[in-house]
Amino acid sequence: MSRLIEPRTMSGFRDYSPAVMIPRERILQTARDVYRSFGFAPIDTPACESLDVLLGKGGDESDKLVYRVRGAKQEKEEMGLRFDLTVPFARFAAKNINELGTPFKRYAMGPVWRGERPGQGRYREFWQCDFDTIGTTSNASDIETILVVNELFTKLEIPRFEIRVNSRAILNGLLQSLGIADRAAALLRSLDKLAKIGREKVIEEMVAEANLSAEQAGQVLDLATMAGTNSEILDQLQSRLPENDGVRRLRELLAIVPGISLDLSIARGLEYYTGIIFETFLLDLPTIGSVCSGGRYDNLASLYTKQVLPGVGGSLGVDRLLAAMEELKHPWLTGASSPAQVLVFNLGAEHLGEYQKLAKTLRDAGLAVEVFPDAKKLGQQFQYAEKRGHRVGVIAGEQEIASGTVKVKDLTKKEEATVPVVDFIATVKRVLQ
Amino acid sequence: MSRLIEPRTMSGFRDYSPAVMIPRERILQTARDVYRSFGFAPIDTPACESLDVLLGKGGDESDKLVYRVRGAKQEKEEMGLRFDLTVPFARFAAKNINELGTPFKRYAMGPVWRGERPGQGRYREFWQCDFDTIGTTSNASDIETILVVNELFTKLEIPRFEIRVNSRAILNGLLQSLGIADRAAALLRSLDKLAKIGREKVIEEMVAEANLSAEQAGQVLDLATMAGTNSEILDQLQSRLPENDGVRRLRELLAIVPGISLDLSIARGLEYYTGIIFETFLLDLPTIGSVCSGGRYDNLASLYTKQVLPGVGGSLGVDRLLAAMEELKHPWLTGASSPAQVLVFNLGAEHLGEYQKLAKTLRDAGLAVEVFPDAKKLGQQFQYAEKRGHRVGVIAGEQEIASGTVKVKDLTKKEEATVPVVDFIATVKRVLQ
Repeated sequence: MSRLIEPRTMSGFRDYSPAVMIPRERILQTARDVYRSFGFAPIDTPACESLDVLLGKGGDESDKLVYRVRGAKQEKEEMGLRFDLTVPFARFAAKNINELGTPFKRYAMGPVWRGERPGQGRYREFWQCDFDTIGTTSNASDIETILVVNELFTKLEIPRFEIRVNSRAILNGLLQSLGIADRAAALLRSLDKLAKIGREKVIEEMVAEANLSAEQAGQVLDLATMAGTNSEILDQLQSRLPENDGVRRLRELLAIVPGISLDLSIARGLEYYTGIIFETFLLDLPTIGSVCSGGRYDNLASLYTKQVLPGVGGSLGVDRLLAAMEELKHPWLTGASSPAQVLVFNLGAEHLGEYQKLAKTLRDAGLAVEVFPDAKKLGQQFQYAEKRGHRVGVIAGEQEIASGTVKVKDLTKKEEATVPVVDFIATVKRVLQ
Repeated sequence: MSRLIEPRTMSGFRDYSPAVMIPRERILQTARDVYRSFGFAPIDTPACESLDVLLGKGGDESDKLVYRVRGAKQEKEEMGLRFDLTVPFARFAAKNINELGTPFKRYAMGPVWRGERPGQGRYREFWQCDFDTIGTTSNASDIETILVVNELFTKLEIPRFEIRVNSRAILNGLLQSLGIADRAAALLRSLDKLAKIGREKVIEEMVAEANLSAEQAGQVLDLATMAGTNSEILDQLQSRLPENDGVRRLRELLAIVPGISLDLSIARGLEYYTGIIFETFLLDLPTIGSVCSGGRYDNLASLYTKQVLPGVGGSLGVDRLLAAMEELKHPWLTGASSPAQVLVFNLGAEHLGEYQKLAKTLRDAGLAVEVFPDAKKLGQQFQYAEKRGHRVGVIAGEQEIASGTVKVKDLTKKEEATVPVVDFIATVKRVLQ
């Protein structure tokens, strides 16, 4: 016998077993439903892009994260695996926008790959789930973006979440009013770490990285952590920055979307944001950080086309959210490893036609139903149902079939009733309620 | 200004725009729903596997198809992109089956990559959509597999399809009865081409490749193209091969599943099938070949584990099916590039709150609704709606808003009615019917 190959996954890559995939598919389906309900259309782009499309976007450090792909026959051009969905979307838009027309609203979901050192909760392959509106500068699209996020977390049945918004236009205005607008990039990178490292460390970093005095850094932080209700903060901003368009846009947003927080310390790392920026926090697990973030940018695809494509969008961190839901014992994570609620037990191969008929009746009523394939001992079939998480057992032996009845067993409460086949859908549905 | 990067896709790779993605997502969702309704559970495995897991499965030729992946920092081990979902499933099963237990029913959907020469309808990245039951030899699972395929094509709203079944056990029995069982592999590869190249060429190939006389090859083909109803063929087989288990299993199958055809010329190329094999044809487009195929195998994961894992399953050719549906003018391919049926027109930024309220009312009633972001000329908004494929326009200017009404416009028939806001859901739904 030849030696076995070890069936391992590569470092930083992982399998998803059913107990995790079932809630993960539910999250993705919820996002898909919400995005579509606002008129965002699905697109898909290849996993592999040419290296010149992928490289040079975020400097040498980020280029080192890009996996190289080549054919065994030595393809002429080397390719790379996409490291996010934004670069492929920019490339897609530059290639297709004339045909598609603007405004263009798309969502995309799929894996991305980064050759980083793997760690606790950090993988080399993970999913992104993005939506964007491009080809318009209208505040209506900013507002809609926040409405989408709000609807998404409502439909995800997360009871306590908070969307925090800010505006790059406002942050830049404030830095300008302090006379330090030229150091915006470094300052916003430091500010972005406030929740993680605290005020003192941020001040130290601003002094070191952006060449501020400690007093100036303190002023930046005082502004960024300005306290008050949304309208108190807006009024203060209005008086400091009377002409700032970001203030007007956020005021409109806050008038239409209830329950969100204006938080001037939200900075977002990426340099390409120019207008609204937002993050979404789970109030019962704030330490996990933002699970859905995004903002407005002036020009999506300037590397690939002269056509100016302003836009606004967001990205759901699917794997981070799933980890959070696990920690929060969210009701979607039932531990079940079968999508079927009902198991039809197998008491003999000769009854298979009958079992499939019973299963079909339940499927036609909208239930997911599994028929056990082998006529094993009932005890083994009960163990299987318990392991998989089925909630109802349908049991029919010779006697039941002869008398036109079935046993319907509540597998949680261990109660059973023998009912006529004509009634059994109602009984099964009652147990499932 | 720096030079623009050409926003191209690599040879053999492609973008999916909304008009194609919308029906493609519907196909995937239908497959997901059908697989789940039979109790198949989702799993996911990484795109990248170690090269020793991927290579050496189908000989040198197929090894050349495997894309190599390496990190820019020179990872220790080279990886490859999966070329199908079966090898990763075998690896997954070997790794996880002790924890998961058997029988284990899974589905998986995702892209696979093959470095082949691209051609008409042949891409280097394409999707597979597989389902399998492993850990049981029961005929109940063979029968269920065919029921799943039948349900799938019914739910895909394909009016005329045919599932053709055969059995490797029967084919081997027939070859044995002719005394040429030792040449089964070559013979079945030739037989598999019958529909494509015709009887004469298959005989030529059998003579050349399997060292048969032309008379023997003719006998093989006579058996493989045996005419008659399912039960006539079964009776003939029964008398030729009285002890053959494949005959018994197919007889059980045909008694339970109506409307499928026994076709002894179905051979399937792959050597690892041992029991039932099947293919699915679209009767209005037979030239496209099988769009869903599979069969039973004796041992899924013998390269990775000593645990014997027999199974049965099938694979839906998503991209081939999509191409076929396009050619057949299937009603799911509407050409619409928005998932929203309704467009709320924008007659002024000051009404945005009102528009979002109208949209939310319709969304809560289960409709997908887009709000146009800019107060552009109405003509431009109508053009947008026509291009995207919206079917209903909701139009509210100052006058309508003041009087608590909206205009509901049937964008196909170009008819409109002004109705009170309290009634407008019913009007919109009526137009959509």
